Amino acid sequence: MDTENLHQHPKLTELTTRLTEIADLRSAAQILEWDQSTYMPSGGAAARGRQLSTLARLAHEKLTDDAVARLLEELAPLERELPVDSTSASLIRVARRDHQRATRIPTAFTARLQDHLSNSFNTWAKARPANDFAAVRPLLERTLELSRELSSFFPEAAHPADPLIDYADQGMTAASVRALFKELLAELGPLAAAITAQPLADASCLEGHFPEADQLGFGREVITRLGYDWERGRQDKTHHPFMTRFALGDIRITTRVKEHDLGEALFSTVHEAGHAMYEQGTAPELDGGPLGEGASAGVHESQSRLWENVVGRSRGFWGHFYPSLQRAFPALAGVPLDSFYRAINRVERSLIRTDADEVTYNLHVIIRFDLELEMLEGKLAVKDLPAAWNARYQRDLGLTPPADKDGCMQDVHWFAGPIGGAFQGYTLGNILSGQFYAAAVAGDPGIPDAIARGEFAPLRRWLTDHVYRHGRKFSAPELIQRATGQPLTIAPYLGYLRAKYRELYSL
Amino acid sequence: MDTENLHQHPKLTELTTRLTEIADLRSAAQILEWDQSTYMPSGGAAARGRQLSTLARLAHEKLTDDAVARLLEELAPLERELPVDSTSASLIRVARRDHQRATRIPTAFTARLQDHLSNSFNTWAKARPANDFAAVRPLLERTLELSRELSSFFPEAAHPADPLIDYADQGMTAASVRALFKELLAELGPLAAAITAQPLADASCLEGHFPEADQLGFGREVITRLGYDWERGRQDKTHHPFMTRFALGDIRITTRVKEHDLGEALFSTVHEAGHAMYEQGTAPELDGGPLGEGASAGVHESQSRLWENVVGRSRGFWGHFYPSLQRAFPALAGVPLDSFYRAINRVERSLIRTDADEVTYNLHVIIRFDLELEMLEGKLAVKDLPAAWNARYQRDLGLTPPADKDGCMQDVHWFAGPIGGAFQGYTLGNILSGQFYAAAVAGDPGIPDAIARGEFAPLRRWLTDHVYRHGRKFSAPELIQRATGQPLTIAPYLGYLRAKYRELYSL
Repeated sequence: MDTENLHQHPKLTELTTRLTEIADLRSAAQILEWDQSTYMPSGGAAARGRQLSTLARLAHEKLTDDAVARLLEELAPLERELPVDSTSASLIRVARRDHQRATRIPTAFTARLQDHLSNSFNTWAKARPANDFAAVRPLLERTLELSRELSSFFPEAAHPADPLIDYADQGMTAASVRALFKELLAELGPLAAAITAQPLADASCLEGHFPEADQLGFGREVITRLGYDWERGRQDKTHHPFMTRFALGDIRITTRVKEHDLGEALFSTVHEAGHAMYEQGTAPELDGGPLGEGASAGVHESQSRLWENVVGRSRGFWGHFYPSLQRAFPALAGVPLDSFYRAINRVERSLIRTDADEVTYNLHVIIRFDLELEMLEGKLAVKDLPAAWNARYQRDLGLTPPADKDGCMQDVHWFAGPIGGAFQGYTLGNILSGQFYAAAVAGDPGIPDAIARGEFAPLRRWLTDHVYRHGRKFSAPELIQRATGQPLTIAPYLGYLRAKYRELYSL
Repeated sequence: MDTENLHQHPKLTELTTRLTEIADLRSAAQILEWDQSTYMPSGGAAARGRQLSTLARLAHEKLTDDAVARLLEELAPLERELPVDSTSASLIRVARRDHQRATRIPTAFTARLQDHLSNSFNTWAKARPANDFAAVRPLLERTLELSRELSSFFPEAAHPADPLIDYADQGMTAASVRALFKELLAELGPLAAAITAQPLADASCLEGHFPEADQLGFGREVITRLGYDWERGRQDKTHHPFMTRFALGDIRITTRVKEHDLGEALFSTVHEAGHAMYEQGTAPELDGGPLGEGASAGVHESQSRLWENVVGRSRGFWGHFYPSLQRAFPALAGVPLDSFYRAINRVERSLIRTDADEVTYNLHVIIRFDLELEMLEGKLAVKDLPAAWNARYQRDLGLTPPADKDGCMQDVHWFAGPIGGAFQGYTLGNILSGQFYAAAVAGDPGIPDAIARGEFAPLRRWLTDHVYRHGRKFSAPELIQRATGQPLTIAPYLGYLRAKYRELYSL
């Protein structure tokens, strides 16, 4: 089969043109959102919301256009002839999936949901510092209604969360995630308990005064070495760090710096660079269309967590980087590498997900996932959320939040997006970071030694070949199977955590 | 007539909705262009060009939609009933003008022109520093062809430049601009000759080392005092300074700093702030539609030049600001105010338009305007442009550019836009800066004294009432008549120049 000629197929060209137009509208929206978080003056907020909503509506209209349906139908025979892993077959397959999902959701509903979420986000942004759950409660109740309505457009779903979970992590359901998390918790719970029964590790070397410019400079040096390409990216400061893709040649990250805390900017920079290197590694021919982005929320998070934790909090990594960190921050001059290593891997029961260590992080996620399901099932009313949240924290982490701002109001997700599908990707990402890293080392056993020498090309090469370059050509389950030779499994991740923390805590 | 109810007219609501969508697409494009000039990494260029072209095409499609034609027809009776200066009547009138112009230009041509200009700009950006006219020549020849083709969509035009001039400066034609410039040159030529026959003024106090941060800080202080609203704007650095509007609440400026030159950043900052205060002063009800921007190229430039020159290079202004300038830049400590005032108003025959003083600036513009017309008339071939340019500079300014990069390749306009209509707005702006300022002082004779006390609210108030708030409700000729009580006239501008420079040069 001559793939070159197939690419010339006029219907495929027409589909590609339409998909590129949709991708351009989405990229424009990404740029507007990036600007909103980085540089927009406060006066720009109202119009920006409207501009984003216009771009989203136009992209939705273009994607659900009857002409797209017709093209996809006309291209079905071609798709069957092509190898399933060819770019053209993948393009038709993924475009069909996106089109079919989009056509299930009325454009008017999308607009209604967006307007509500915009309002909800703005209210939350003010209500959270004021610890005012009463202010967000009616909005969150409406979000729950709208989330159920969104789910109702997929009446075949076994659970109301399924369409929302599937959107972020294709192939997963409420039932499969629940089973996976139960399995994980059975192992992680005892590990966390055994560690937190010991005295708290000393992390005082991470506290002090670390000038912002020096922190940013060191972070840039590290991710340059990891392989982040500055010709095709940049870093700015935002309230919450994120990665965003405007095109293969323009993939940006943001960070935030706390001058009293050496870990915040450093690890968030490595985390976002992990997301960004994934996007920078997608094959050029996938750019400007539905295949030119990561495979799923979970796979994306696996790439950020792999670099942040599996690599960036490893002894080998710091064996290499610690001397230059000490040069950059003279306060560390008298701190042995081992103390620093223990500090950056301190395990602690805590209230805030984003500050949590590797071992307890998933406990935070599982609480949110369970509460999402209960709300969608109608078993938990929004008015009872704060109490339910606090009860779960007491049960699972042994702590009760002193205030809702550090409890059920801490995360933006339910206040800026639907309830359902928002959190499972974080723990899927953790699990997959272990699975991908184990497969990488199996494929190239020299990787750990290379890392200890400050050489990251071997790991990046494996990830590029097996994950990055494929973009969204394959669904997450297909990609995981191809890359690791097996379906998603918790064993490598647990093996990694056990080995690391048994040694650290002499368990 | 109850304007409130008319606003509720369902057809008017529908028109407004469509126009807002177009405005949103254009604002998105503005944001993408701003980012391209400020922060975009080099790798983003190719995709950015495509994204901008998609947004421009969609906006053009929406504006030329048959439904818009129908709505405008259905709204014609309402428009006739409404007072001509009502917002609703203006909206219908201006939308009709934009729609009719856009429908004359085929969408395919727009795309072809944009692609060519994008290519031309990129070539010019490399060829100019290399002084390589041969590299841009074929592209410029194509630009000329395309400019004539663009003009040909308006076969009723008396001169091929007319549709291009009218687009930027409604109501003006090649003939009327030519007559105006002839009249101006007859007066300005002798004035410039009399001044440049004298010894060159000493501007050495503007040369030295002026740290970037201090220059930016002082510029910010000045425009804050003038009335630039930072809650609805910001300033960034770019290669060429510009002003851009994303919404009434987000109107940004850029600047550039030369550390050896105190004038560059300062006056460009005041210039761009002049553009920006105009946009910030448009009435809120005009935002998000075709009325929410300046009236014309000439009127816009009048606002930047009024603040930059008539105010910002006046003795009264510096009588107030000079002490704080001296505090910011200690090198000026021993320089008397009068020497500084002479330095910032030095008149000099020069090669570069953007560096030219008030008196000779228009000579640069008139050369370009004349050459544009000759090229469009077929009297001047692109291959002969460098020689024609140099001959005109020798004749009008007594200098021959040593290289094309400081000659016919110096300005971006012909390399990033059509030939025709690109330059006349600068001199119209200068003329109007004098006319509007004279009308402002006639309306509020306290304005000059207020400026000398560092109070800019009286001038800003007059400009807001008579110019800013109207946005694009009125055509430039209507706005000028309403604001100044007469049509465009060179008398006040010449009066201003003569009085200022006779005193400075004891003519």
